[in-house]
Amino acid sequence: MSQDKVYTAGMLVIGDEILSGRTHDKNIAQVASWLQVQGIRLTEVRVVADVQARIVEAVNALREQYDYLFTTGGIGPTHDDITVDAVAEALGREVVIHPEARKTLEAYYTGRGLELTEARLRMARAPEGAGLIPNRISGAPGIQVENIYLMAGVPHITAQMLDGLTGKLEGGAPLQSQTLGGWIPESEVSDILRACEKAHERCQIGSYPFFREGTVGANFVIRSTEKTALEACAADLTGQLEAEGYAVTPGGI
Amino acid sequence: MSQDKVYTAGMLVIGDEILSGRTHDKNIAQVASWLQVQGIRLTEVRVVADVQARIVEAVNALREQYDYLFTTGGIGPTHDDITVDAVAEALGREVVIHPEARKTLEAYYTGRGLELTEARLRMARAPEGAGLIPNRISGAPGIQVENIYLMAGVPHITAQMLDGLTGKLEGGAPLQSQTLGGWIPESEVSDILRACEKAHERCQIGSYPFFREGTVGANFVIRSTEKTALEACAADLTGQLEAEGYAVTPGGI
Repeated sequence: MSQDKVYTAGMLVIGDEILSGRTHDKNIAQVASWLQVQGIRLTEVRVVADVQARIVEAVNALREQYDYLFTTGGIGPTHDDITVDAVAEALGREVVIHPEARKTLEAYYTGRGLELTEARLRMARAPEGAGLIPNRISGAPGIQVENIYLMAGVPHITAQMLDGLTGKLEGGAPLQSQTLGGWIPESEVSDILRACEKAHERCQIGSYPFFREGTVGANFVIRSTEKTALEACAADLTGQLEAEGYAVTPGGI
Repeated sequence: MSQDKVYTAGMLVIGDEILSGRTHDKNIAQVASWLQVQGIRLTEVRVVADVQARIVEAVNALREQYDYLFTTGGIGPTHDDITVDAVAEALGREVVIHPEARKTLEAYYTGRGLELTEARLRMARAPEGAGLIPNRISGAPGIQVENIYLMAGVPHITAQMLDGLTGKLEGGAPLQSQTLGGWIPESEVSDILRACEKAHERCQIGSYPFFREGTVGANFVIRSTEKTALEACAADLTGQLEAEGYAVTPGGI
């Protein structure tokens, strides 16, 4: 782990169901939160349809630009599951049956009195030379090849794949955050926010307005990899907002 | 409206809060669903941080590739709201105070006994020559310039901006869908799905597995711009699944 390098990740969400609005994506938020804890900054996400050429294009753009690439979706047994093929094409590798994945699936299905059919064996396909990411829930593993991590589309399966990867990726100092909130119209305090961010150069301030109970308010999220810088900025911002007569709630409202 | 041309859209979600996992995006699903009804296919989504150069890059990539581009986020009054600046830069236009937006904001704030401060006036900034998208909730309008539609980050504000645009964009025949579901392991029927999609070339079939009550099941979503093709495919797939001994629930489970 390095304190100075900022480690970055791209993410590719694969699936017609997200682009049609039928399914609300839950993987972006969970991968994003998990990466924060690993000290890796999620920098860009793309969502593309189940079309191999589009997946290949996005995989190549993202894997080259960021330290890590996480994909979700398209690793199941059906005809619209083409993520493995697309990633293999992007990397110029063959698709093979991964021997360990085959064993895992065999054990999973025979343990349930079922056969490892040809369709199920599709879930053992991987780009040549890939490693596996364990899946305790449904048998079909995730895949790691070069800097790419192929995860499931079903959020709770991806959750436990991420769990198994915790602490195993090289990252930097994790980004920490501190939130302040109040019944404060952000347009009243935009000069304060701007000046405060400028004065605390190791910090970023995000302003997230809301409307509740007929009144406007906002939460201000300060982010930094340095705890002391974060605390100094939060104290400064709190003081300035209070000097303007606003009540400030630590932790946000 | 043309029945033959497939109209496409890209979408750009702007905001550190999505990439940090702090906020769960709700705009992708609502823009996607709305576009379906307009006969426009959402083809790609990107999520980028509040960094002007990254927004400019994504705006240019998406506006050139698709018939429409929708952005969400970054049009408020604070220092991290830079979508207008980025879109203007991408198009090589100046940023100006839009006279009509100024009037709307003046009316909105004076009507509430408040002043149109410089910070609030920021929300009247627009790329030169842009049109406005009405916002009945918070006064600050959305913006339309060339094929780009700038919407709010707050989902219920975007919802009513979309509502105001309903039927105003040129689109093709809307994509329709029909869903079948059952307690069917998708890996058991993947050959049927693949063959059925091949036999009905105006249709796409998506397979969405789930685990509930300790049992696996799946919903199969058939999509087509042609109602007759859709119905024929659904009938065929239902018949084939029932012939294998599965109970099929129209509408999905």
